[in-house]
Amino acid sequence: MEDKYILSHSQPTRKDYIDTEDFDQSEILDLINLSRTVRDYIKSGGVLDTLYHRSLAMIFEQKSTRTRVSFEVAMEQLGGHALNLAPGAIQLGGHETIEDTAQVIGRMCDMIMSRVDRHESIQALAKYAAVPVINGMSDRSHPTQGLGDIITIFDHLPANKSLNEVKVIFVGDCTQVCNTLCEMTTKLGMNFVHYAPKNKWLSEEFLQLGRKNVEQYGGSCEVSDDPKCLKGADFIYTDVWYGLYDKETPKEVYMKDFYPKYQVNDDMIAATHNPSVKFMHCLPANRNEEVTDSVLDGPHSAAWDQAENRLTAQRGLVLYFGQVAQATLDYIKQQKEGNNA
Amino acid sequence: MEDKYILSHSQPTRKDYIDTEDFDQSEILDLINLSRTVRDYIKSGGVLDTLYHRSLAMIFEQKSTRTRVSFEVAMEQLGGHALNLAPGAIQLGGHETIEDTAQVIGRMCDMIMSRVDRHESIQALAKYAAVPVINGMSDRSHPTQGLGDIITIFDHLPANKSLNEVKVIFVGDCTQVCNTLCEMTTKLGMNFVHYAPKNKWLSEEFLQLGRKNVEQYGGSCEVSDDPKCLKGADFIYTDVWYGLYDKETPKEVYMKDFYPKYQVNDDMIAATHNPSVKFMHCLPANRNEEVTDSVLDGPHSAAWDQAENRLTAQRGLVLYFGQVAQATLDYIKQQKEGNNA
Amino acid sequence: MEDKYILSHSQPTRKDYIDTEDFDQSEILDLINLSRTVRDYIKSGGVLDTLYHRSLAMIFEQKSTRTRVSFEVAMEQLGGHALNLAPGAIQLGGHETIEDTAQVIGRMCDMIMSRVDRHESIQALAKYAAVPVINGMSDRSHPTQGLGDIITIFDHLPANKSLNEVKVIFVGDCTQVCNTLCEMTTKLGMNFVHYAPKNKWLSEEFLQLGRKNVEQYGGSCEVSDDPKCLKGADFIYTDVWYGLYDKETPKEVYMKDFYPKYQVNDDMIAATHNPSVKFMHCLPANRNEEVTDSVLDGPHSAAWDQAENRLTAQRGLVLYFGQVAQATLDYIKQQKEGNNA
Repeated sequence: MEDKYILSHSQPTRKDYIDTEDFDQSEILDLINLSRTVRDYIKSGGVLDTLYHRSLAMIFEQKSTRTRVSFEVAMEQLGGHALNLAPGAIQLGGHETIEDTAQVIGRMCDMIMSRVDRHESIQALAKYAAVPVINGMSDRSHPTQGLGDIITIFDHLPANKSLNEVKVIFVGDCTQVCNTLCEMTTKLGMNFVHYAPKNKWLSEEFLQLGRKNVEQYGGSCEVSDDPKCLKGADFIYTDVWYGLYDKETPKEVYMKDFYPKYQVNDDMIAATHNPSVKFMHCLPANRNEEVTDSVLDGPHSAAWDQAENRLTAQRGLVLYFGQVAQATLDYIKQQKEGNNA
Repeated sequence: MEDKYILSHSQPTRKDYIDTEDFDQSEILDLINLSRTVRDYIKSGGVLDTLYHRSLAMIFEQKSTRTRVSFEVAMEQLGGHALNLAPGAIQLGGHETIEDTAQVIGRMCDMIMSRVDRHESIQALAKYAAVPVINGMSDRSHPTQGLGDIITIFDHLPANKSLNEVKVIFVGDCTQVCNTLCEMTTKLGMNFVHYAPKNKWLSEEFLQLGRKNVEQYGGSCEVSDDPKCLKGADFIYTDVWYGLYDKETPKEVYMKDFYPKYQVNDDMIAATHNPSVKFMHCLPANRNEEVTDSVLDGPHSAAWDQAENRLTAQRGLVLYFGQVAQATLDYIKQQKEGNNA
Repeated sequence: MEDKYILSHSQPTRKDYIDTEDFDQSEILDLINLSRTVRDYIKSGGVLDTLYHRSLAMIFEQKSTRTRVSFEVAMEQLGGHALNLAPGAIQLGGHETIEDTAQVIGRMCDMIMSRVDRHESIQALAKYAAVPVINGMSDRSHPTQGLGDIITIFDHLPANKSLNEVKVIFVGDCTQVCNTLCEMTTKLGMNFVHYAPKNKWLSEEFLQLGRKNVEQYGGSCEVSDDPKCLKGADFIYTDVWYGLYDKETPKEVYMKDFYPKYQVNDDMIAATHNPSVKFMHCLPANRNEEVTDSVLDGPHSAAWDQAENRLTAQRGLVLYFGQVAQATLDYIKQQKEGNNA
């Protein structure tokens, strides 16, 4: 990261962005660096067209607001276009096999992003499409959210702390967001804790991924139902306890598991003993269930910055997998030097 | 309006376009002037990019053809993009509070336009979004339609008549279109009549708004069920009598109220005693109910020009509230001078 | 076709693209030539903006993947934009008459493409809209698919064969794709055979059209249920036997008609006695019903090229009917000469 205009990898090592564990630390750092540099350039009034006339097909098997809006705006801001193939528009594996759909869309569009019901679907799209495929959330992971989250963490990194000293706590249900956050924070050498009742802890699969990262990059990876783990947290992250799917465990059951112990409220914030602790939430929130108004709207909340960083991350991803990341950074550098000359 | 390239207000006095009564006459004249100048420039082959890469989120709680198409085309013609968040894509106040949706969308997009079920929803969007919010119709008013209507009236203004001498009659059910037309015509000093059965007259609230305008700007504001009021009309405007909502009073009840007395037909046109009278309709029409084919397709009809002016108005609105109105006019002036040099 | 940068007709002879029989051979050759030249230019990295800021309204009465994606990408690649009016967004002849919808959309957008339930609807749109209307499939014909198909045939034309020597066989149900393929291949002087059971043969109307073409341009036009007709085929084309519509003859009935005799499998490919024969399918396919995996995924398959040529054709169509075809070719020629200078 010495020179923010030069990436460690001038080209992606993989065609697709399916899971964050497919990439090593230097690649994740490239994505963070790229995304933040492009964001700052656009926010300062800079104009980019490095994806001029390129098309991204967005295939949704489930409804989405944030993922859809952020990708659509990202493509347009970079000179391209995103096609919204809403739930029902294309049924992956319905009238046509996923393999055939992937081949056809890959012949017409330059990239594909898809939110799928089953992780196997996004893997099949990636295998059969000739163009880059981005996982816009599956039942296993949420790597575009994960990149936005880690960018938000970098934006609010405590001064004078190395990455190995940063502590990130995910509170509540072990959603895909929790899985990906564990993978990404540990890959960057941070200290990750999933604070939840035992029956909701991170799966063995993701715990192993986290621990492998710890071996390689330092930091730590833990699960805990002891409120003492909150102490020293730099980031407290939570997600809804229920309501993500049509058919699921009733609200009452989830409330019994989580409420009131795992609600992020002023007491939990105080329990971190860190006056600079930041609160994160992938949104939408069920207000005053998993988080109180006082926290979500309060001085610790980074949730709205985090929402904006969905856009920051998507720009980085489409530039990177669209293979114009280095060209974009070169252009920005040149523009800035031109302005200063 | 001496110099059509200079606005009275170089910046909007309000962030949002929720109701026309929030703006004074000079601001409405700015919007009309801007919209018409930009239309003429584009129709003559001019190209604009003053909203280059900017995004407008269109949130629809109800289906829309005209509002959606006109905003989407307007944004694209100005170098930007409109995201179509169709009914069901985002449920305002459903899974997420309106306040939270407003904050999130406002972090990703540059403007929001929304058609809402309840006027309170558009007010809440405006309050919580950091970006400009445009009311694409609520149960109270339809100010984007109103701007297009008033532009159409300006396009067909009788020669040698001052605004204080122009007479506009709205016939039939007191819809949002009627409310806004009353407010805008009286703000411009015209003479407005709502011609309808007593039980369908303009509400006291809008009558008061109209009368306040009359005090300030001249003209008049009346309701009447006497066909004599038709005499001297320069514009006869009507809207459907029913069929706008899923659940409503049955067709038979409405027909009994309005038919045949309030149907705009050749006899009603004749009753104006004005051979140059123009017919207006916001469309879609229930042909041969509130208006006959002979009138809608006849020589008095300005309804198709009016449909096109939805686009004219939306361009003006996104430029104005996107804070690039004066810059756009400066650019057009410069281009025209360049061509003439 | 001597100079691929000069069209026989610098302007379209008709405003609309409703049926291929409305155009003569030289016009179809113009469309093929234009589409392929633009494709090759864009594939080699060329950038076009000859439809800058122009809008295409896409009105769908039925779901579509390929038609929608290909038109949307085509417009964006040429500097314009396509509006997706999905099924239900606009009901042709519902709340509003088709005539009125055509007039209104034609006042806001620069072109209309529509997939309709009934052929009369596309004809009415064309009659009442002031702008070009493109038939994106009706119950009668599928001329945008037809153009992509004929481009694919040109891409894979046997060396040393004149058009009059090329043999194209459509196998299976007489769909709109079959109708249009018959019309286009015979217009170009090729030999067309519809190989199907007698009760599924091409209608008398399309046979007549084909035979009229044969009189004018040479070639031949036949229907047959005799497998001997396969011999010498250069192209074997098939489509699904059922599953296109919600309400239709049950699968069992269709299978009885077609299976196994009309399945395109290795034996049928062998029966052509042509080692260079190409297989075509408009997709989506019901794999191992009308075509086996071995053929669709095998060395004879041109189906994926054909899918990509939907995009090739749509670019040609919007440029041609948008009246910028010759201007686009002039620009490409100029760019190429500039690069070579």
